[in-house]
Amino acid sequence: MTGKIVDSRIRARYWIETAFPLQQAAEMMAGEQSTGTFVRVPGETDELRERYAARVEEIAELEIVDRPSLPGSGVPKSVSESPVRRSAEVEISWPLENMGPSLPNLLAAVAGNLSELKPFSGLKLLDVQLPSRFLERYQGPQFGVPGTRRLCGVYGRPVIGTILKPSLGLTPKATAQQARSLAEAGIDFIKDDELQSNGPHSPFRDRLHAVMETLTAHAASTGKNVMYAINITGEMEEMLERLEWVYAAGGTCAMASMNSIGLPALTLLRKHAKVAIHGHRNGWGMLSRSPAIGMSFVAYQKFWRLAGIDHTHVNGLRNKFCEADDSVIASARACLTPMFAPPAFGCEIMPVFSSGQSARQAPDTYRALGSTDLIFACGGGILAHPSGPAAGVASLHQAWDAAMSGTPLESYAQTHKELRESLNTFPD
Amino acid sequence: MTGKIVDSRIRARYWIETAFPLQQAAEMMAGEQSTGTFVRVPGETDELRERYAARVEEIAELEIVDRPSLPGSGVPKSVSESPVRRSAEVEISWPLENMGPSLPNLLAAVAGNLSELKPFSGLKLLDVQLPSRFLERYQGPQFGVPGTRRLCGVYGRPVIGTILKPSLGLTPKATAQQARSLAEAGIDFIKDDELQSNGPHSPFRDRLHAVMETLTAHAASTGKNVMYAINITGEMEEMLERLEWVYAAGGTCAMASMNSIGLPALTLLRKHAKVAIHGHRNGWGMLSRSPAIGMSFVAYQKFWRLAGIDHTHVNGLRNKFCEADDSVIASARACLTPMFAPPAFGCEIMPVFSSGQSARQAPDTYRALGSTDLIFACGGGILAHPSGPAAGVASLHQAWDAAMSGTPLESYAQTHKELRESLNTFPD
Repeated sequence: MTGKIVDSRIRARYWIETAFPLQQAAEMMAGEQSTGTFVRVPGETDELRERYAARVEEIAELEIVDRPSLPGSGVPKSVSESPVRRSAEVEISWPLENMGPSLPNLLAAVAGNLSELKPFSGLKLLDVQLPSRFLERYQGPQFGVPGTRRLCGVYGRPVIGTILKPSLGLTPKATAQQARSLAEAGIDFIKDDELQSNGPHSPFRDRLHAVMETLTAHAASTGKNVMYAINITGEMEEMLERLEWVYAAGGTCAMASMNSIGLPALTLLRKHAKVAIHGHRNGWGMLSRSPAIGMSFVAYQKFWRLAGIDHTHVNGLRNKFCEADDSVIASARACLTPMFAPPAFGCEIMPVFSSGQSARQAPDTYRALGSTDLIFACGGGILAHPSGPAAGVASLHQAWDAAMSGTPLESYAQTHKELRESLNTFPD
Repeated sequence: MTGKIVDSRIRARYWIETAFPLQQAAEMMAGEQSTGTFVRVPGETDELRERYAARVEEIAELEIVDRPSLPGSGVPKSVSESPVRRSAEVEISWPLENMGPSLPNLLAAVAGNLSELKPFSGLKLLDVQLPSRFLERYQGPQFGVPGTRRLCGVYGRPVIGTILKPSLGLTPKATAQQARSLAEAGIDFIKDDELQSNGPHSPFRDRLHAVMETLTAHAASTGKNVMYAINITGEMEEMLERLEWVYAAGGTCAMASMNSIGLPALTLLRKHAKVAIHGHRNGWGMLSRSPAIGMSFVAYQKFWRLAGIDHTHVNGLRNKFCEADDSVIASARACLTPMFAPPAFGCEIMPVFSSGQSARQAPDTYRALGSTDLIFACGGGILAHPSGPAAGVASLHQAWDAAMSGTPLESYAQTHKELRESLNTFPD
C-alpha cells in the first residue's frame, strides 16, 4: 500500500478467511469498527452515518480453503452445512476524524474487536497507511539510520553488534568486564538481554555506571564510541528516570520491550529521550506465528516507528527461531521504507538482524536487502570465534566487505584468515 | 494453579506442542527465558547459574497430534521425517529475584521470545501465579466488586449496564440525551464504545460534561447515581488529565483499552485514579483466537488486575463473537478468583458480560457463575424492548430475580409483563 497517495483517510489491509460472501464480510468489518450496531437515536442522520462509516476500498479474492483455520467462526444461516470458505485480501478505510491522529485510538479501530468477529475463521492485519497528519502529533524516530550511524561512527557498512550473555546472573562488574572485552574486540553496538533490567543481582544504575565507565574509558583512549542499548523496561517513572541516567552517564541508547510497555509509554519516552530508542519486539511471536490471526510485522512496526523507536529486531536469515527468511527480509525492508510520501518525514529506522547470525549470512542479507543500513548482531559468531572476539568482529567486517564487493565468501576467505576461521567454525 | 501455596517463585503454565522429547522441550523454554544461551564469562559460576535458572516444575503429557498447529517449527535432527508430535501442559518457575516484582519485566520473561522458539509448533500461556510480593509494588483494583457496587448503589443483583450507540457520530448533546433516557429507564451503568474517545465530532471534555450534567441532575432528583465509563484512552498526559476531569465532573469511572495503552500506563493511571477503571480488552482476540499461540484470558487478566483495573470484559453466553460459553465462564470466574492466598488482597474485579445479551442469558449465567457479582451489559436487550428502555431494564431485573430464585424464565414471565415481552422479542 505504500505506493498509494496518502489522503485524509486511514487505510488498513487484512487477510481474511470467511464462509460469508466477501463483500458482506468486508462490510461487517467496516461496520463493526466504525458506526457499529445501529440504533436510531435523536439527532442521528444518514449524512452523519455516511460521514463516519468506514469504507471497503478493495477486495482481492484468494483461494478457497477446505477447512477453517481458526475455531469459533460462524456460517451464513442461508447456506448448507459445508459452505464454501474463501480467503481474500481486503482494504478498509476510515475518516481520520473518527479518532483524530491518535495511535492508541487507531489501534482500537484497526486491530480491536475485529479479530473476534464470528463470520471470520481467519483475520490478520497486513498493513496500515496513515495520513501525514499523524506527523504533526507524533515525532517518529529521533536518530533513525543517520543518527545511529553518527552516534556509532560507522559509515558504509552495517553496525556490528552483540548481546551481553548470560541473559541473567552477571554482576554489574562482570557485565562491564564483558563489555570491555567486546569494545576491545572492535564491536560497534552492545545490547542487554531483554530479561536483564533491574533485578536485585544487577541493579540498573550500577550496571549502567559500571558499563559506561568502561566504554567511556575506551572512547577516551581509542576515539571509538560503542553504543550500549541498556534495558530500561519498567514502570513509567522508572523508564523516564533511567532515560535521564543513561544520557547523564554518556550513554547513547536505551532499550525497551515494546509489548511490555505499550504505545503511550513509548511516545512519552520519545518526547524526553536524548538517546536512541532500541525497540525490542519480544512477545511479537504471539501476534505473528499464526498465519490466521494477529498482525504482520509490516503493520506492527509502523505504530512503533511513529511513536519513536530508532531500531527494532527482525530476526535474521536462517535464524534459530520460527521465522522464514522471506518474512525476515520483508520486515527489514519495511523498517527502511518511508511511512509517508516525501517531502514528509519517512520515519525510517535501523533493522536489527540477530539470532544465530555469523559471517555466513552477510552475502545473502546484503543481496536480499540491497543496503548496509542495519545492525548485524552476532553472539556466538563473535564470542565463539576460535581466535577470540577481535577475530570474530574482524571476520564480520571481512564478510560484509566480500558481500558489498560481490566476492564469494570462500574466495575472499582465502586471503582473510579471520573469515576463513569463521567459515570453518560456523557451518551453514 | 490458584490452589497452590504462593512462594518466592513466579510460576507459569503453558500448553505446548512439540516434536522434541517433552522434558527437553520444557528445559529449552526454561533456559531461553532465564540464563539463556550459555557462554562462559569471567565471574560466572555454576552456583550463579543454579541461582537464576528457571525450573521445569511439571509436565503433563496430553494427546499425540497428527500435524503441526503452527508453521515454522523444527524437529530434532535425530528423528525421522515424520516425528511423533506431542502436546502437553508444562509449568515453569522463575526466582522472583530474576526481575523483581515488575509486571513489564515479568511479561518479557513469561511471554517474550518463548512464542518464537523453533522446537514448538504450538505454545500458549495458560496461567501465571505470582508471589504476594507483587502486592507491595502494585495496588491492584481500587474499587473492585464492593467499590463498584457502592458507587452504583446496587446490591444483591448484577449491575445492569448498556453501551452508547452508535459507536461514532453522536454529538456530545445527542450522547447526553441518550444517557438521560437510559438513566430514566433505570440503568445502573453506561459505557462508551471503545471507538469513541476524543474525535473532532465528540471532544472528550464536551462529551464528559454534557453526559455528567444529565447524570448529576438525574442523581439529584432520584438519588440514583448512574456509573458512566467514559473512554479516556489516549496518550499518557491526556489520560491522566482526563482522569482528573472525570472525577471533577462527578464521574465515577474511566474506561481504557488495555491493549492500546500497555501495563505501565495502567499502573500509572491506577496511582492517580479517584474513580473506577474499566479495562476494555479489545484486541484480545489477537492473543486468544488461535488455540496454539498467545495467552488465555485467565493469565491475561491477572496482569491487568494487579496493575489496577476494576472491571473487564468477558463477552457473554451465546455471544455474537467467536468465544465459546465455557471460555466466557472461565474468564468470569477468573476475575472473581483471588490472585493471592488470604489474608493477602485477592484483587478480585467485576466481570462485564456483553455482546448479544438479553433476559434470556440470565439463568444460565447465574447457574454457571454462581454469583451476581458482575456487570450485565445489554444493547438491543434494553433499547429494542417493544415497550421501551425502561421495560427493557425491568425485564432484566425480572430475569435475574427469576434466576436467583431458581424459577424458570417462562413461568416467571407469566406474572411479569416486561420479561414476557422480552422473551417474545429476543428468541434464543
